[in-house]
Amino acid sequence: MAKPFHDGLEPNPANYSALTPVSFLKRSAHIFRDRTAVVDDDMTLSYSEFYARCRALASALESAGVAAGDTVSVLCHNTHELLECHYAVPMLGAVLNAMNTRLDAATLRFILQHGGARVLIYDTQFEDLIREVLAPLGDPPRLVAVARQGGASQGLARLDYEQLLASGDREYPWAKVADEWHPIALNYTSGTTGNPKGVVYHHRGAYLAAMSNAMAMGMSPQSVYLWTLPMFHCNGWSYSWGVTAAGGTHVCLSKVQPDAVLRRIRRHGVTHMCGAPIVLNMLLNDFHERGERLDAPVQFALGGAAPPSAVIQRGQELGFDIVHLYGLTESYGPSIVCVMQDDWQNLAVDDLARKVARQGVGLYAIDDVAIAGARKGEHAPADGRTMGELLLRGNTLMKGYLGNPAATREAFEDGWYHTGDLAVMHPDGYVELKDRAKDIIISGGENISSQEIEEVLYRHPLVLEAAVVAMPDEKWGETPCAFITLRHGRDPVGETEIIAYCKAHLASYKAPRKVVFCELPKTSTGKIRKNVLRERLNGA
Amino acid sequence: MAKPFHDGLEPNPANYSALTPVSFLKRSAHIFRDRTAVVDDDMTLSYSEFYARCRALASALESAGVAAGDTVSVLCHNTHELLECHYAVPMLGAVLNAMNTRLDAATLRFILQHGGARVLIYDTQFEDLIREVLAPLGDPPRLVAVARQGGASQGLARLDYEQLLASGDREYPWAKVADEWHPIALNYTSGTTGNPKGVVYHHRGAYLAAMSNAMAMGMSPQSVYLWTLPMFHCNGWSYSWGVTAAGGTHVCLSKVQPDAVLRRIRRHGVTHMCGAPIVLNMLLNDFHERGERLDAPVQFALGGAAPPSAVIQRGQELGFDIVHLYGLTESYGPSIVCVMQDDWQNLAVDDLARKVARQGVGLYAIDDVAIAGARKGEHAPADGRTMGELLLRGNTLMKGYLGNPAATREAFEDGWYHTGDLAVMHPDGYVELKDRAKDIIISGGENISSQEIEEVLYRHPLVLEAAVVAMPDEKWGETPCAFITLRHGRDPVGETEIIAYCKAHLASYKAPRKVVFCELPKTSTGKIRKNVLRERLNGA
Repeated sequence: MAKPFHDGLEPNPANYSALTPVSFLKRSAHIFRDRTAVVDDDMTLSYSEFYARCRALASALESAGVAAGDTVSVLCHNTHELLECHYAVPMLGAVLNAMNTRLDAATLRFILQHGGARVLIYDTQFEDLIREVLAPLGDPPRLVAVARQGGASQGLARLDYEQLLASGDREYPWAKVADEWHPIALNYTSGTTGNPKGVVYHHRGAYLAAMSNAMAMGMSPQSVYLWTLPMFHCNGWSYSWGVTAAGGTHVCLSKVQPDAVLRRIRRHGVTHMCGAPIVLNMLLNDFHERGERLDAPVQFALGGAAPPSAVIQRGQELGFDIVHLYGLTESYGPSIVCVMQDDWQNLAVDDLARKVARQGVGLYAIDDVAIAGARKGEHAPADGRTMGELLLRGNTLMKGYLGNPAATREAFEDGWYHTGDLAVMHPDGYVELKDRAKDIIISGGENISSQEIEEVLYRHPLVLEAAVVAMPDEKWGETPCAFITLRHGRDPVGETEIIAYCKAHLASYKAPRKVVFCELPKTSTGKIRKNVLRERLNGA
Repeated sequence: MAKPFHDGLEPNPANYSALTPVSFLKRSAHIFRDRTAVVDDDMTLSYSEFYARCRALASALESAGVAAGDTVSVLCHNTHELLECHYAVPMLGAVLNAMNTRLDAATLRFILQHGGARVLIYDTQFEDLIREVLAPLGDPPRLVAVARQGGASQGLARLDYEQLLASGDREYPWAKVADEWHPIALNYTSGTTGNPKGVVYHHRGAYLAAMSNAMAMGMSPQSVYLWTLPMFHCNGWSYSWGVTAAGGTHVCLSKVQPDAVLRRIRRHGVTHMCGAPIVLNMLLNDFHERGERLDAPVQFALGGAAPPSAVIQRGQELGFDIVHLYGLTESYGPSIVCVMQDDWQNLAVDDLARKVARQGVGLYAIDDVAIAGARKGEHAPADGRTMGELLLRGNTLMKGYLGNPAATREAFEDGWYHTGDLAVMHPDGYVELKDRAKDIIISGGENISSQEIEEVLYRHPLVLEAAVVAMPDEKWGETPCAFITLRHGRDPVGETEIIAYCKAHLASYKAPRKVVFCELPKTSTGKIRKNVLRERLNGA
């Protein structure tokens, strides 16, 4: 290209700096000094106080030996302390590892060692667990105890969070990282098999994911976000940074209980919340039974499974505006969202549910969403039928897996991120998930989506939970087997009735050949462990 | 820093791509296929049609010899053709130079030559002007005629815009630029003295400015933007890309006339518009006189001067929600915005006007806003009094001036962009402009802001326009001299009355010593040419 547009026009400190979500806090603290940034139980932090605390924490962590590239692990519920870590740790160029509070000692130990944690900040209510985690470790991380309900540390941690923070400089002159590709967070996947993988985020991606969410979800300084989604899931789907970008208010929540949620919605004027179907269902059932209705609409961004029409309808009745989205740890949370079209407003609820059941279209920072075709390098047509692996490309996909170049290469093969989910592309450009690649059932050469069968099962009024997996079959290769938990206090239903119900709503070959009534095994994040069910069928 | 966070975690095509505003069009065309992207008189373009036309134009321009780094100049009003160029030209990695339609032949010629235009797309209503511009040129750019009211080209251009576009590939496989620092646009400043300078934008900055505006102005797919601001001003303050990012509708407007504006507001449900005070005043006066009131609130983003309380009040009465902002060609348009605080809602209109008169706080992509202090490298305190040059730093400042490394270095001295405007920082962190650095009057060692005097003059009911400049004075060095245009059809007012009025509202030493009643000389963009007034006083 012509030279003149480059000569003497190189980046300089005035016109180029790294994109980092820490800048959102600086900006909001400048503009919204006295506005409420964080509510945590009865405590509130203004934006200037929140920023001063984050700077003090960064300064204190630096004094405690944390440097750029070091990992700081945190085991806390959705509290202001964990939120503060989302800014203080990146201010140092260090890497935040927010750990899943539902994990067992062995997995936590694996993560601390694999992630190379230099400091571990933990809520003292987990002190016994942490003691167990650390017992066999020769070189444990430095411990910082957060004393809330659990009280002060009983001899385990030498540092107390509030004391440490108080020792720091509230005007600590943090600097942006020099390179926006610098790591900012380390989030472990909750794999259903094997060791969790450490997903590395960078500052640029976190900035773009936060802006992208704030735009897509219509956030503004008037937004009030309730933390029903664990902050350890993809840094709260990047809302930890996005809410601050908008200048909105974070309302913390340690435990998702319907009355605690409702109280906070009313008291703080909540406008936005996120969560898995299990959270939404719990709230809808509880509010409905108690005859409660929200005074003003609350947006509920739902990830993990499509909302059935009954849920959409009940949501509308109670005042929830449900937005269906899709994402993975590898994509900073939300990467696909079911954008509502104008003409959907007039649809009957069942038709609307069919539209909204689709995961949707890429968020701002996603360049391309495609379905892998039959041949390598090709993409499936947008016919709503041809199934293939869902592929993503864009600026909000992870740097890769920590210390696992083989898995990183595999995930990014051919210049696309491979989600491992099977989906179709509809003619209107919306994708719809059909199954996890490894959960598909191949029966007599036909692909059967376990999810499609599960959707039918969930529509049965007596079914509380259902999972369908492949069962080895001499004749067909595989056939579907359903594992079902029934609702309590209802009349029981038998295998024959369930199979007949499926045949009435599905192509006959897709109906389960066998039904097992039982509790379903789950991961710490509530995912059904289909591998365990498969092993059971295989007699492992 | 520790190695593990970088090993094998380099950017790859799946997780890294250039930020470019062209991606907004691709995304909106995918999601909002049948939604209206552009309205231009009686023509409407859906998002898929708009995208297809932009791709076809890119493809046709490529066939016509345009390559990455080439300049494409355009001389059109706010039409769909100019909007299309905002996407088609960057698709090729070429550089869009949207020219000011009010410039004279000599200045246009200077710009075409200085910018190295390879192609010139022009509306045939400017054909005579273009003929004059090109006459002395040995190697003129390739001409493409846009035939609207002016009809087909009369023998000047060999290419017709619509024919050229029709020859292109509507599915042209454009690719993102490889480097987001790549130039995207070239905008010439309307300097009051000397030759205009060519301000170079890059793709990253254009992307961030567009997102930033869309967020700050609360744009959504429901937004309808009326083009009252010339698209040749900083690419329409980056709204050319921001409206598309939001998936909103562009309503074109070739000439700002109150009845045309009102008709479009009503017909298309306009929600957002921008402009200079002269545009806002014209609309407010006209609507008020005709007793018109807007059916739904319209946001008017006002740049160029603070809205006086009378304007804010009339705006409120008529349905305009006025947002005061500040920007320069060098900052992609808006870089500072007067964010409304909750407690301002309850202020009396005069108090509100004083708050809103401040330019405000940095937009998202601006890292720092500061006031230069007395000593080099220091910043003035936030006391609302200490005046200094307004400095900016962030990702939405130009690459620099084309072919002018000395001016670029000077503008970016010490790692800040020097705006040349004098301002104060208020204790709440909002900046307020006091004057252009070169317009300050130094009288007996005291700094007098010409703008402060002008504000008082503008409050006088008989003053239509006013400009104050320094007049040489033997005793004081300089004293203020006011140039005033009075309102038509009102009783005249004399010099003595004006000076007395100023003394009643200002410190006595700030009142003008002399008042001249006349028409004020202006630039093509409507800026008062104070240098001409100064020359007049100096007898030049």
